[in-house]
Order: sequence, then structure tokens, then C-alpha cells
Amino acid sequence: MLGAIEAGGTKFVCAVGKEDGTLIERIQLDTLTPENTIPHVIEFFKKHEIEALGVGSFGPVDIDKNSATYGNITSTPKPGWKDYPFLQTLKDALHVPMEFNTDVNAAALGEVMLGAAQDVDSCLYITVGTGIGAGAVVQGELLQGLSHPEMGHILVRRHADDQYEGFCPYHGDCLEGMAAGPAIEKRWGKKGVELQDEQRVWELESYYLAQALMQFILIVSPKKIIMGGGVMKQKQLFPLIQGKVQELLNGYVAVPQILGNIDQYIVPPGLGDDAGITGALMLAKRALEN
Amino acid sequence: MLGAIEAGGTKFVCAVGKEDGTLIERIQLDTLTPENTIPHVIEFFKKHEIEALGVGSFGPVDIDKNSATYGNITSTPKPGWKDYPFLQTLKDALHVPMEFNTDVNAAALGEVMLGAAQDVDSCLYITVGTGIGAGAVVQGELLQGLSHPEMGHILVRRHADDQYEGFCPYHGDCLEGMAAGPAIEKRWGKKGVELQDEQRVWELESYYLAQALMQFILIVSPKKIIMGGGVMKQKQLFPLIQGKVQELLNGYVAVPQILGNIDQYIVPPGLGDDAGITGALMLAKRALEN
Ligand SMILES: Nc1ncnc2c1ncn2[C@@H]1O[C@H](COP(=O)(O)OP(=O)(O)O)[C@@H](O)[C@H]1O
Ligand SMILES: Nc1ncnc2c1ncn2[C@@H]1O[C@H](COP(=O)(O)OP(=O)(O)O)[C@@H](O)[C@H]1O
Ligand SMILES: [Zn+2]
Ligand SMILES: [Zn+2]
Repeated sequence: MLGAIEAGGTKFVCAVGKEDGTLIERIQLDTLTPENTIPHVIEFFKKHEIEALGVGSFGPVDIDKNSATYGNITSTPKPGWKDYPFLQTLKDALHVPMEFNTDVNAAALGEVMLGAAQDVDSCLYITVGTGIGAGAVVQGELLQGLSHPEMGHILVRRHADDQYEGFCPYHGDCLEGMAAGPAIEKRWGKKGVELQDEQRVWELESYYLAQALMQFILIVSPKKIIMGGGVMKQKQLFPLIQGKVQELLNGYVAVPQILGNIDQYIVPPGLGDDAGITGALMLAKRALEN
Repeated sequence: MLGAIEAGGTKFVCAVGKEDGTLIERIQLDTLTPENTIPHVIEFFKKHEIEALGVGSFGPVDIDKNSATYGNITSTPKPGWKDYPFLQTLKDALHVPMEFNTDVNAAALGEVMLGAAQDVDSCLYITVGTGIGAGAVVQGELLQGLSHPEMGHILVRRHADDQYEGFCPYHGDCLEGMAAGPAIEKRWGKKGVELQDEQRVWELESYYLAQALMQFILIVSPKKIIMGGGVMKQKQLFPLIQGKVQELLNGYVAVPQILGNIDQYIVPPGLGDDAGITGALMLAKRALEN
């Protein structure tokens, strides 16, 4: 049996499952302080006698295996989590092989191994929710370098008619500041789900998200782009984004995936809301193999 | 003996050298039509009895080894080169193992193996010249996906005081359109080299280049960024870019390489103008090993 954790900023999902990605049992916990949440996590996995554990965590996290603080949450404002030795705490309690990465890198891995990107060896997964984050698998490997990607904070060009200042505490009007769920709510005075029929809301939203995808395509050239998270439940966003990406690139990247069937290139997660937890299970599989 | 080609849009460099990167002999040719240029290339390598050849080429090129048109130049406006079977022509003439990639991916490889990024396993190489292009090595592998990266064409935010429309035929005011050598010349009416003492020229240039570097850092998180090409001969650009990258990120990527010694993170090529040809030689070494 393999264990998997999808540690999000608002909720924790813990699951056990099989190497083929089947999820057998799961629990969901609110993300309180580590002292409140982690004991329940450990208890769950002790009960199930797992052989390996995969963790996809909210960030920023230290994912450098050569670092003294590998597996720590680093600079979050979330009470109790700053510098928390997440992986070490789990290791001390569970004594099984573990792989640790970001929640979005895990989701990208899940989608490449068992989801919408099974036919290719590279994909980018972006979630548009309370924040915006993205991860990628490149030629079979999770993308990382100096640190993990922080694609949610890239620059976008402001729309001429948009007066909203953006809510990112670091950058104001970066992508996340302009296009994550809270930006929609602050700009229009209502939650995204209540704005479903307001065409101009999704026009503007797709204006920013298409810019982000253009940058991703030009910089990492993913073989598929998967868009998940609460905001992407608004399915009318897909054709808007697809069309705007084609307009922005203007024929420059001359491949059939973009010039032709872009509706098969920019897609929702094949695993639906289980991309992250399934990806974490695939991290556990990797831990067992190494 | 190994062979190397750096095929640029204005000139071809052909060289022979050793596995340790030593260049023994080289020739330089103008990039005319393939019929005019390629015979001289082949003649040079026949004379030297090479065991393997590495090619770093101007693009766009097809670098997908599973593609029927692998090794072709694809959609260039350059007379005679569109759809030219570059690699196949060389193979038919020389019958040695070959590796083929973009000129900037080759330069990134050269810098990781023998240049300014020898201490790390990942780097991004950007050239700012007649055009802007970038390549990257990620965890030891050349970055590629759907195609090779086309980082020169990413979006940037226009400076409020800048009226120049940009010269990119596809996107107008993308990064290349606003910041490559010809943009400087068209905006200010003089070549970059003659504008050396014009502070505002380099302020504006660094404004655009710093934005590009911010996007690269957030999206691929390279362990070092190497900036080459004619425009980067203006060494005063380095501190300007370094400072602006720190301002733009505003502490968000909290690693010592960026918060602290950014002058060792954003650097000129360790191999100088030989990054590309040395990288092509390293491609030849890889061809021999595979
Ligand atoms: N159906 C929906 N339509 C539009 N926005 C939604 C929808 N569901 C959730 N959201 C928005 O997405 C954000 C929550 O994102 P979600 O991915 O569900 O969680 P989190 O990012 O916290 O893990 C909120 O800002 C919420 O308003
Ligand atoms: N010393 C310099 N200072 C500023 N700009 C320069 C300098 N040298 C070359 N350039 C500009 O760089 C461009 C040529 O780039 P270069 O990298 O030399 O060649 P290419 O990109 O064609 O391979 C031209 O636009 C030229 O004006
Ligand atoms: Zn931000
Ligand atoms: Zn362009």
C-alpha cells in the first residue's frame, strides 16, 4: 500500500492507494497549525501500514535534496508553518521512503502518468484558485532548478479597461494578483461562481490567463497544458483562452498542436480534482523505486 | 577529433576540437544560401576526418528525434533555408554520429560543461543580438518539449515613456521587438555601440531585459543566467539588470543567489564569444557517447 498527501493551504487530503493510481481510502482535514493537523495525518498512515509516501505540498518549500532544510515549508505567512520541517516530521514518525515536491508539480506528474497527458512525456499543470501555481514535467522529470517554479507570479500586461490594482502582496498586479479567484471577487464584488453569466468577467480573465500560457509555451514548450483549480470550473474559459493564445502567438510557434487542434492542447485535468492526490501517489511509487 | 558547427543567421563557424573543449582549428563563413555555404562546411570536415559532429543552428529547427523532418530548418524567411534538410545533408556527406540542436541550447550546454555554469547542473543562456534567443539546460538535459524554446518572443510590459512600436513581424512589441539590437537602433537612430554613453538607452534596455529574466526565473528557475550577444557587450547593462530583477521579484524568490550575490547569478558567458561553438563541440561529444 502507498500513501499520498496533497497538502493545500486550506485543506489536507491524505490517501492510500495502489501503484496503478487507484485510490482506496482518503480523509480530508482542514489546514490548521501543524500541531493540530499533522498528528491526524500520521495516525491515518500508521493505521494503513504504508510502504512509501508521496507528498505534494503548498509552498514555498525546499525541494533540493542536497539542502539541510530539504522538505521544509519555507517562507509562508500561514501561522505555524514557516520553516516547518514537514518531511522530517513525517520521516521520524513513519520510517518509509518518501518523495516530496510541490502540489502542482505532483499534479503535473499525475496528469502525465495517468491523466490527460499520458500520451506525452511533458506537460505543464496550472491551477487557478485562491492563488495561481504551476508545475511541469519535462522529458519525464519534474521541473526544478534553483527552487521550484513560481509561475503564478509572472508579469502580465494590464488590460486598458481594467482599473483593479491586483492583490499580490509582493507584486500587486502580477498574474496571481490579477487573475486568481480573490482578484475576480475583489474586482467585480462577487465570487466567481456567481458571475457565471457575465461575459466580460471571463473575457478579462482569459485575457490574463492566455498571456501566461503564451509565456509558458515560449519558455518551456510543454507538450500539453492542463488547467485546473476552482476558477477553471468555468468551462467557458477554455475556448476563450485557446483562441487568445492563438491570437497572441500569431502563428509564431508553427506546430499542429497550436495552429490546429488547440482544444486538445489546452485541456482540463484528466484526473479532475484528483490530479494532485494521484500525483502524490505517483511520487510514493517513485520513492519505492529509488 | 570532433567537429562543431555554430550556424548563425549571419555567419557560420565551423571548428574541430577535442573532448575537453579545446578548439584546434576553425573557419568562418558568411551565411549565404545552402548551395553556396554548405559545400565549404562539408569540405572543412572531410579534411579533418572527424569522429562525430555537433550542430547548434539558428532556428526555428525541428529537434524532435522522432520526427520525419528532424534536423530541418523549418519556417525561416532566409532565402533557401526554409525546410532545408540541414542535418540529413551533413549525414549523407560525412557519415559520423551527430547531435543537432539550437545555437542557444548549444551555448547553454557549453556554459554548463565548460563555462560560467560549471558549478551547477542547470543554466539559462540568452543572447541579445540581431534577435533574442535563449536556451537552457535543466538537470543536465537540454530543454525541449513540443519544440525548442522561443524565449525571445515573450511579452513584456511597455515602459510608459517608450513610444517605439517594436519590430517583430509576428508580435510587434514582444521582447525581441523591443530590446534586440535593431530595436535599439530604430528607437534611438544610432547603433548600440554608438550609444554607449547614453544612460537612458541602457536604463530602458535593462527595463525590458530584467522583465524577461524575471519570467525565466519564475518559470524555469535556472541555477545561473548567462547573457551574451552583441548588445551585452555593453557591460554597464549587468548591474542595471541585476538591480531591476531584484526590484521586480521584490523578495519573492527567497534564495541567496538572488537576494544576495546576484552579480554571480546573472553573468556574462565564461566562454565569451565561444559559448556556442564550444557547446556544439560538446554536442559532438554526446553524439560519440550515444
Ligand atoms: N465554480 C467556480 N467558478 C468560479 N470560481 C470558483 C468556482 N469554484 C471556486 N472558485 C474560486 O476559486 C477559488 C478557490 O480555488 P480552489 O482551487 O477551489 O481552492 P484552493 O486554491 O484554495 O485550493 C476561490 O477564489 C473561489 O471563489
Ligand atoms: N558593442 C556593442 N554595443 C551595443 N550593441 C552592439 C554591440 N555589438 C553589437 N551590437 C548589436 O548587436 C547586434 C548584433 O548581435 P551579434 O550578437 O553580434 O550578432 P548576431 O545576433 O547577428 O549573431 C546588432 O544589432 C548590433 O548593433
Ligand atoms: Zn505576485
Ligand atoms: Zn516576437
